[in-house]
Amino acid sequence: MNSLPEARVVTDPDVIDSYARDRTFVAPGKPLGVVLAASRDDVVTTLKWATEHRVPVVPRGAGTGLAGAAVAGDGVIVLSLARMTAIKELSPADEIAVVEPGVITADLDRAAREHGLMYAPDPSSYEISTIGGNLATNAGGLRCVKYGVTRDSTLGLEVVLADGRILNTGRRTMKGVTGYDLTGLFVGSEGTLGVITSATVRLRRAPAVPPATFAAEFGSPRDAGAAVSAIMAAGCQPSLMELLDRTTLKAIDDWRNIGLEDATQAMLIGQSDAADGQAMAERMQRICLDNGASFVAVSSTPEEAEELIGVRRLAYGAKERMGACLVEDVCVPRSKLAEMIIAIEEAAARHGVLIATAAHAGDGNLHPVFIFDHGTLEPPAEVWAAADEVFTTALRLGGTLTGEHGVGLLKRRWLAMEAGPVAAEVQNGIKAVFDPLGILNPGKAI
Amino acid sequence: MNSLPEARVVTDPDVIDSYARDRTFVAPGKPLGVVLAASRDDVVTTLKWATEHRVPVVPRGAGTGLAGAAVAGDGVIVLSLARMTAIKELSPADEIAVVEPGVITADLDRAAREHGLMYAPDPSSYEISTIGGNLATNAGGLRCVKYGVTRDSTLGLEVVLADGRILNTGRRTMKGVTGYDLTGLFVGSEGTLGVITSATVRLRRAPAVPPATFAAEFGSPRDAGAAVSAIMAAGCQPSLMELLDRTTLKAIDDWRNIGLEDATQAMLIGQSDAADGQAMAERMQRICLDNGASFVAVSSTPEEAEELIGVRRLAYGAKERMGACLVEDVCVPRSKLAEMIIAIEEAAARHGVLIATAAHAGDGNLHPVFIFDHGTLEPPAEVWAAADEVFTTALRLGGTLTGEHGVGLLKRRWLAMEAGPVAAEVQNGIKAVFDPLGILNPGKAI
Repeated sequence: MNSLPEARVVTDPDVIDSYARDRTFVAPGKPLGVVLAASRDDVVTTLKWATEHRVPVVPRGAGTGLAGAAVAGDGVIVLSLARMTAIKELSPADEIAVVEPGVITADLDRAAREHGLMYAPDPSSYEISTIGGNLATNAGGLRCVKYGVTRDSTLGLEVVLADGRILNTGRRTMKGVTGYDLTGLFVGSEGTLGVITSATVRLRRAPAVPPATFAAEFGSPRDAGAAVSAIMAAGCQPSLMELLDRTTLKAIDDWRNIGLEDATQAMLIGQSDAADGQAMAERMQRICLDNGASFVAVSSTPEEAEELIGVRRLAYGAKERMGACLVEDVCVPRSKLAEMIIAIEEAAARHGVLIATAAHAGDGNLHPVFIFDHGTLEPPAEVWAAADEVFTTALRLGGTLTGEHGVGLLKRRWLAMEAGPVAAEVQNGIKAVFDPLGILNPGKAI
Repeated sequence: MNSLPEARVVTDPDVIDSYARDRTFVAPGKPLGVVLAASRDDVVTTLKWATEHRVPVVPRGAGTGLAGAAVAGDGVIVLSLARMTAIKELSPADEIAVVEPGVITADLDRAAREHGLMYAPDPSSYEISTIGGNLATNAGGLRCVKYGVTRDSTLGLEVVLADGRILNTGRRTMKGVTGYDLTGLFVGSEGTLGVITSATVRLRRAPAVPPATFAAEFGSPRDAGAAVSAIMAAGCQPSLMELLDRTTLKAIDDWRNIGLEDATQAMLIGQSDAADGQAMAERMQRICLDNGASFVAVSSTPEEAEELIGVRRLAYGAKERMGACLVEDVCVPRSKLAEMIIAIEEAAARHGVLIATAAHAGDGNLHPVFIFDHGTLEPPAEVWAAADEVFTTALRLGGTLTGEHGVGLLKRRWLAMEAGPVAAEVQNGIKAVFDPLGILNPGKAI
């Protein structure tokens, strides 16, 4: 591995192992080494070396992915971008920032807020995940119901291609149609087309007031789903709208005692960050009552808002207490939300599997979490059988296999069901244009 | 041309000629014929025939393009999608529609409004242009300052590839990250990668109240530009914000006598379609006054709003009266708006060319219209010299050659300045994946 940027290369097996994993259970192989890139030049050097020696490269940010896209196999080089943490520019006048891929997403958001702006995409991992990883997976989050996903905030990229050439895509302007949309092509491509070394992202005005929050309890997922549809149809424009199913609520209640009623089968928590947010939260509250909610609360102070949204924040921790978690990520047309939740409950019952679901309800994006015994290294067969049923149902309802986590390794076996053979051929063709030797994160995404 | 869908083929030379042009001055060649496709099968048949006989195909919608992308050369087949006008589905619950490419954009918007929804992208041509054409150019419009461009409203596509294979891209859901973003790749590709035969588009809630409108006159473009920046920085979220330069205002005044003051060098017209639109328009009015506006009006009725916005609607007609028009389309970072207007004025003076500019100011997207003698079939040399200066300045300011019209034929000679050789190689590589024989709209876009 000489000619690799020497000071950046790690070959200690324990360190390598820690850089070969993500947040899935997928066991990594034994990579040759890890490059801790500190600059674009380090990335260029690494990729030129990899091309010359035909060695696969697995790029990674913070390794918080949930689909296995950053899991590294035998004999590869892991290319970590986590040390490229510069916010190179932040222009309040143009509402853009230019950042290196290792910037922690929440750090960019905080830097923007010093100027009355925000970086909108907020995956649940945003305090620990990087912009580079967010770009690689086209990460979503809670606010995307109002502000869109990572792609909607990405204007341009600097990318190092597999052979070390540098490609600039996109622009600094709000609009632009010069040539094909290469920026959009890289966002969500999971490091299989090139390594992003800089991104020009769009910032937005931060809301002037703290968000107003409501929470509502429902006796059935169907009522909760109807309330979601009615809220969106009324044009309330929630800045966040999360749904928790009975199993999730039970897990939270067992841990922190939130006084869960027996009759409560689903909870909806929503926010408005608009200037008239308080009125809007009250309007959403009324819509929930009109759709059968048994209990509804609206915050009147930021502290109360934090308390209501706090329940949502407990969801994942409550599930992790109960066992190992396979976090899934289907997305359906919004009108099918309740149907999807019921289908998940049926799959859980049929296969004897514990599935707790939280959803970005306004987007129809559900995260069924399959909980299984910590003792098993991999999810047992019944978990996969239930997951298969969930995926098949999502597709039947006009949905997709993954709303925001990506395909990685975990979803590849279902990919053909959604995309079909022509799409597969075309995607392989595109991959070959950028990476003819197939050294960039092989076996992922497509 | 037997084996082409016979009933759909037109070979009358006059009719062919009318299908070989767009809204530019570019002279077409002599196509072999025109196929008036009425179904996806017609498109498949046409493309299979074209592949077999190695005949180039120029797809087109309504031919309202301003970059020459639909201009057809010698020996090609023109493939018109204008007869595929079905709105196949409109789902208020999921806020989506599935449409054929020949649907007139405003017709889709009207159909959506029957359900309290709207189709947001509104290029100035939206009463005569088609969704297919809008997709091919990634069309923008007045409302995109708030709602984004065509790509931001496109969820999925059905595309016939050059060899007649059918590719489905994207999804019906609000989010999705399965595989590469092929949908985004087709939007804006000007018919060079495939022929779109169906699109799943996102609808949005239509505003509940008519928009409130303000108009402001400024003594200099710099003051107007400062007002634009201040309005955006204040988070006013205009749903439209147009800037007219002195030459445009003079042309309108000469035609319709709007009482233009000598001191007025620029006019800003803005709207808010928010629930608190009236208050927001008044706030924007105050910001204009704070930035040196000499006269400001705010509508208090929908009729007054129509009157104020009516001035903007006269802009293009007023210019067409004065001569032949080359409509250009640069986009700069918003903070550079005034600098760009001044550079355009300087280029006009230096080259002795009449340039009248209207801008989608909130996006930094300017349309300098180069007006020349009707007697010349093509723009004279000094127009191209001035245009070259305008393009060069836009790029120097961190801008782009085209915000929303596309590259077509007209911008190709400047493309390398913006995109660079690596991007060109990559784009040619992508083109070859989809269209290895190079029969789809050759010589356009890239």
